Amino acid sequence: MTDKTDVLIYDTTLRDGTQGERVNFSAEEKLRIAQRLDEMGFHYIEGGWPGSNPKDMRFFELGKRVRFKNARLTAFGSTRRPNVRVEDCENIQTLLAADTPAVTIFGKSWDLHVTDILTIPLEENLAMIRESVAYLKANSKEVVYDAEHFFDGYKRNRDYALSTLEMAWTAGADFLVLCDTNGGTLPHELTEIVTHIRKILPEAPLGIHVHNDGDLAVANSIAAVHAGVTMVQGTINGYGERCGNADLIPIIANLQIKMNRRCLPDASVRQLTNLSHYISDVANIPPQNSRPFVGRSAFTHKGGVHVSAILKNSAAYEHIKPELVGNQQRVLVSDLSGKSNIEYKARELGIDLGTKDAMSTKIVKRIKIMEDEGYQFDAADGSLSLLMKKITGEFKEPFVLECFNIINAKTENNPSLTQATIKIVVGDEEELTAAEGNGPVNALDNALRKALLKFYPQISEVHLIDFKVRTLEGADGTAAKVRVLLDSRDDEEVWSTIGVSTNVIEASWHALVDSIQYKLCKDKLNKHHKED
Amino acid sequence: MTDKTDVLIYDTTLRDGTQGERVNFSAEEKLRIAQRLDEMGFHYIEGGWPGSNPKDMRFFELGKRVRFKNARLTAFGSTRRPNVRVEDCENIQTLLAADTPAVTIFGKSWDLHVTDILTIPLEENLAMIRESVAYLKANSKEVVYDAEHFFDGYKRNRDYALSTLEMAWTAGADFLVLCDTNGGTLPHELTEIVTHIRKILPEAPLGIHVHNDGDLAVANSIAAVHAGVTMVQGTINGYGERCGNADLIPIIANLQIKMNRRCLPDASVRQLTNLSHYISDVANIPPQNSRPFVGRSAFTHKGGVHVSAILKNSAAYEHIKPELVGNQQRVLVSDLSGKSNIEYKARELGIDLGTKDAMSTKIVKRIKIMEDEGYQFDAADGSLSLLMKKITGEFKEPFVLECFNIINAKTENNPSLTQATIKIVVGDEEELTAAEGNGPVNALDNALRKALLKFYPQISEVHLIDFKVRTLEGADGTAAKVRVLLDSRDDEEVWSTIGVSTNVIEASWHALVDSIQYKLCKDKLNKHHKED
Repeated sequence: MTDKTDVLIYDTTLRDGTQGERVNFSAEEKLRIAQRLDEMGFHYIEGGWPGSNPKDMRFFELGKRVRFKNARLTAFGSTRRPNVRVEDCENIQTLLAADTPAVTIFGKSWDLHVTDILTIPLEENLAMIRESVAYLKANSKEVVYDAEHFFDGYKRNRDYALSTLEMAWTAGADFLVLCDTNGGTLPHELTEIVTHIRKILPEAPLGIHVHNDGDLAVANSIAAVHAGVTMVQGTINGYGERCGNADLIPIIANLQIKMNRRCLPDASVRQLTNLSHYISDVANIPPQNSRPFVGRSAFTHKGGVHVSAILKNSAAYEHIKPELVGNQQRVLVSDLSGKSNIEYKARELGIDLGTKDAMSTKIVKRIKIMEDEGYQFDAADGSLSLLMKKITGEFKEPFVLECFNIINAKTENNPSLTQATIKIVVGDEEELTAAEGNGPVNALDNALRKALLKFYPQISEVHLIDFKVRTLEGADGTAAKVRVLLDSRDDEEVWSTIGVSTNVIEASWHALVDSIQYKLCKDKLNKHHKED
Repeated sequence: MTDKTDVLIYDTTLRDGTQGERVNFSAEEKLRIAQRLDEMGFHYIEGGWPGSNPKDMRFFELGKRVRFKNARLTAFGSTRRPNVRVEDCENIQTLLAADTPAVTIFGKSWDLHVTDILTIPLEENLAMIRESVAYLKANSKEVVYDAEHFFDGYKRNRDYALSTLEMAWTAGADFLVLCDTNGGTLPHELTEIVTHIRKILPEAPLGIHVHNDGDLAVANSIAAVHAGVTMVQGTINGYGERCGNADLIPIIANLQIKMNRRCLPDASVRQLTNLSHYISDVANIPPQNSRPFVGRSAFTHKGGVHVSAILKNSAAYEHIKPELVGNQQRVLVSDLSGKSNIEYKARELGIDLGTKDAMSTKIVKRIKIMEDEGYQFDAADGSLSLLMKKITGEFKEPFVLECFNIINAKTENNPSLTQATIKIVVGDEEELTAAEGNGPVNALDNALRKALLKFYPQISEVHLIDFKVRTLEGADGTAAKVRVLLDSRDDEEVWSTIGVSTNVIEASWHALVDSIQYKLCKDKLNKHHKED
């Protein structure tokens, strides 16, 4: 497919991405990711630095057994060590041992690094570059040459930086990748420098590899393509050390959707939202809602004024169609909310408000009152749909609370012991039970589930995945109002519920009950639908 | 100071920033933020949209009583409603009622919005712009005109977009702000368009307001300045709807440190890290470690080969000196940076660690263990100084806890009843007492104070002014670890203490005890000093 492609996408999530502080993948996870990227049509997948750690070597072992449809697997390493013969250099030999079709080696472009850090003569560095590239080519590898610190080197000693590039090129490198390793280069500087390189080495296929220290990595990558670069290196979700690498997702979306530079099949671009969430799941790093193109909030609209307009004409308020990247439009109900929000939301949640807007007016009134009390439904779809169903009469309480008691006992420096007792009524049956927990809310949660389980076995499918507490008016110290946000999930979906009170236990109770009620209520609905 | 400034910084954290999901400020919090921005030398602070919600109006009421040293407060709103006389338009009147030196109004630049959404003739929109600007000028306001959707409008109907700008300019607007409201414009497009506007309206001071939907907001803001814009609108930490607004922090850092365009006093630029953390604390949104310039990881280097090189020559691995933005270098798997911090901090807190660094090593070790448990001392000086005093032996426990019990009882839909009993020992005297509260933590707080009062009357001077709870690992739902941050004050100072536990009561207890101990300990010190 390369022939149809304008820009080659080179993913280094598995190598440079894992330099990020909390990013870790097992060799097996790496393989799963590599296969996913291959299916989507990524052109190069940098699997790791076999010389630097054994886990990476294991990945390449696994990789040998896999046939990749689109991607070329590449192993990363440095040029040969100073003052050794290239064939005797362990780094270089492990690169060959990785047995990948392509190999990526980085060399020093910045004289300061050669003289002050490697502390070798500038000529020796040039020899390291030349011999390493030539040797790998002689071993019939495709060679990607990463010019480390290129932009800083160019600014500090242009001639030397250029001579390192020319050295790699004349030695036979297939790509010269200009790296902004410290991530501090500004787009207009970068454009100027890349343009100059294109003039000097018109034949050489160029690549770009930038970091995000100036919050400019995506802009710099696009600017480089605009200036004639044909390979972009980056990571999914911009994982990487310090402020991260260039995030391939917005780069691909901007290039392909806005600049008409073909990177991946359109079908794969529609998978970007999926891919982003998949990678954060595997890395176990919570996805960022505000992430451009693929974040949960990327096409979320707030405020009554807007919403009616959005329903009229999405293009007026969205820079692209969310579907193009596999994302979707969402509307929040906020304290600027109007009836149109509610009606939109009701449709989204599949709730029938009837034809006349008496119902939505009633709902807006109720929401405004609750928002004055500190409720906030932006992030609590579950509670919102329950509220609507309660007002429209669609909802029947699955249980009634008679009472609960929570005891937290602490002696000296021992951890607290926490127990909860609860008594509920379902139909005409009473249930009294007790449970312990890590804390008062956890104990209450455990007791409530225990009490409900015999009536509603599906409760066991509900998992609480996030629990957030926010103080509303700090001014009252420990007497302040708190807002509890709870994210729950079952096998089908994730829902959020909310509770507000001056008592964190009360607030949590309301959020817990909403979460359980939402689950029971939607299951009834599904059952109902199946019966139709 | 404006005369010494190249670029005016216009902050809209309090208005557009609060459009972000989960971003909420009370009127009092808004005022605290505004005063902080003013002290740092921000030029304009957009306080809110008085027409859109009462909370914002309250902020402006509070704002009237404050004298700002540097910043001009501005109220935001739209041009007059279609087909009403400007003096009869409620929007415009509430803007005047906000009583700010400057007013910002937005008007439509994109013909599509005029015809399809406002559904009015293109001429009426021009009249709305002209009359609104002229009327506000006639009421001696400084007028900032936000040209909403300007770039999209320019691409779709250039002549009309330009005529809206010219209309605002001839009507007397002081600034014409080009807005990329949908956030989809690419830097090279934006540069071309801004350059064209400069040619057409060479006299008009231009501003830029962009959103981050393409992950290009910082780049676009810088490109605009590069093309001749002299006012940049944005928010702290890039808070804002969808993918956020342009983040002023990297914009200021890039402009002032790298492009030599003066925005703020250098001393304020050194406060940027502080400011970023302060705003995320007030918003109670966890700070992003990878945030450019100010994130905890922004200058973090992984152990190994690098470290020695970094210590040799930071410039080789950092795009700027971290101190320039008030951040610091961190080297993982090495307590070197930690120790110097501790010694610095100890000096700052007036604690003597002695000459040999055995003590600071011990403290760093202890802190690292606690940080692994989820403690975070950046925002908890009170707890940190106590910790140091405990390790250096400067500290004597003012009381010992024997036990406490908290009971939370709820029946049906009535609010919970919460009581706490506590037994403490001071010297050889025991004190057993009980108190109620409107939540478990408040009850415990009340009981502890009640028990201590007869031994330490100065406890009555301590007021808890803020109480924040944050979940640390969402994955465990209600069993997750929580971090409690407590701000306390007496007549002399404000101090922050911290507690971490899976049990919110335990975590709060630790923060409460630290707060009380800090108070008693500093008073002993003062008394001691007075005796000298």
